[in-house]
Amino acid sequence: MLKVIKIGGNIVDNPEKLDRFLSDFVNLEGDKVLVHGGGKVATKISAALGIETRMIDGRRVTDAETIQVVTMVYAGLVNKTITARLNALGCGTIGLSGADGRLILSKKRPPVMAGEPPAMTDFGLVGDPMSVNTDLLSRLTSEGYTVAIAPITADHTGQLLNTNADTVASTLAIAMARVTETHLVFCFEKEGVLRDVDDPASLIPVITPGEHAELKAQGVVHTGMLPKLDNAFKAIEKGVASVSICNAESISQPGCGTKLIG
Amino acid sequence: MLKVIKIGGNIVDNPEKLDRFLSDFVNLEGDKVLVHGGGKVATKISAALGIETRMIDGRRVTDAETIQVVTMVYAGLVNKTITARLNALGCGTIGLSGADGRLILSKKRPPVMAGEPPAMTDFGLVGDPMSVNTDLLSRLTSEGYTVAIAPITADHTGQLLNTNADTVASTLAIAMARVTETHLVFCFEKEGVLRDVDDPASLIPVITPGEHAELKAQGVVHTGMLPKLDNAFKAIEKGVASVSICNAESISQPGCGTKLIG
Repeated sequence: MLKVIKIGGNIVDNPEKLDRFLSDFVNLEGDKVLVHGGGKVATKISAALGIETRMIDGRRVTDAETIQVVTMVYAGLVNKTITARLNALGCGTIGLSGADGRLILSKKRPPVMAGEPPAMTDFGLVGDPMSVNTDLLSRLTSEGYTVAIAPITADHTGQLLNTNADTVASTLAIAMARVTETHLVFCFEKEGVLRDVDDPASLIPVITPGEHAELKAQGVVHTGMLPKLDNAFKAIEKGVASVSICNAESISQPGCGTKLIG
Repeated sequence: MLKVIKIGGNIVDNPEKLDRFLSDFVNLEGDKVLVHGGGKVATKISAALGIETRMIDGRRVTDAETIQVVTMVYAGLVNKTITARLNALGCGTIGLSGADGRLILSKKRPPVMAGEPPAMTDFGLVGDPMSVNTDLLSRLTSEGYTVAIAPITADHTGQLLNTNADTVASTLAIAMARVTETHLVFCFEKEGVLRDVDDPASLIPVITPGEHAELKAQGVVHTGMLPKLDNAFKAIEKGVASVSICNAESISQPGCGTKLIG
């Protein structure tokens, strides 16, 4: 049994929250893969280096200088800080990026319609995953290692590519589901999927595909949550045993957050 | 048979030289570990971030901000650029730091006498290796992977520590010599050990411990080379089969550089 757990900027940017999360994480049962984003550090470093951060529709445009910065921050600083901390907590951990051992071989994204007004937009050195080296991940986890993964991948020419951390997590989970029972967990700042986005007590504990369709039809689910749910159910269709959406601070509580099942 | 090859800043800082070196490197026979320094990029990034680079006796003083920069540059940018390139060249490679899987567990160096005039000097977050996870390295190489290693280590509390790349290479070679026949290669800008530092034709192809003592007594060896040779012969005393000192650009030529043997 493998858990693929993704944490985002709200945890990575906050040393105390990160420390509490990692202490809980080491106690989770089963083989574990931790996919982390990079948070605001990359934007700070870019600004200090005089590199302009361009965002279109909330996504970073990655030019030749920006890929260097995100590789430094995600695969260097954040990945090794997390890895060293987990090892110190007694959880033998190896930190990788998608570029290591072609863990995730990707392809530069072609220009897509984006922006306001919509226009053909080249997001630059951004990678879409093509294949996963499940053998590498299986070997490391079977030898008892936890694997911490930075969302940097490479294409077949060795060009490093910035890759969405949610996509990295679901790509790995879908690929590993062919090898072992795999559960995917997205940590974020809310308790899970809420009927009322301002009321934590309105948490929906379990959603089936039928209920998902119903919630969408009723317009209950918050707009920002819709693509997350759609992607989660796609992962379940492709063999992932469950996808949980929960607060990083409740990860050690059994049945925390919202669990999506097939 | 394992080769531990160390490249320094003169290669890492020069994309064309690095590319040529990596193309030669992939053709070397046997299992391979590549230890790389970080070059001048860390100094450049530090300057851009307004972090003062302090050097004493040619060694970097590593404060809390500097360890973040060297972790970003060495374990992030340089390590992943090399790793992605080697994978693209068909050489399955995993990029690690000493912090991964406690590959090298280190200890913060206590203050030492240094500087001019000599005084007790704290080099800050600098690590001296304590132990090596040879099992991890053996497993990865036996599975066919080359391992690229950034000279960042961690102590038992998870504190990241800047570690001399030559020391990382010889520490790994000495530890692996207990497991398999291990050869250590230091690449640098000269052809090897020269009788006349300005004359490449004065290369000494082989040095035994007896000849080493003789060369030292005669004052033949260039001052900068002396600690390199002393450390190399220490590695040989501890079981490393041979230590070569050669030009990175001649690495693919049989018998290149100076070979130190027991």
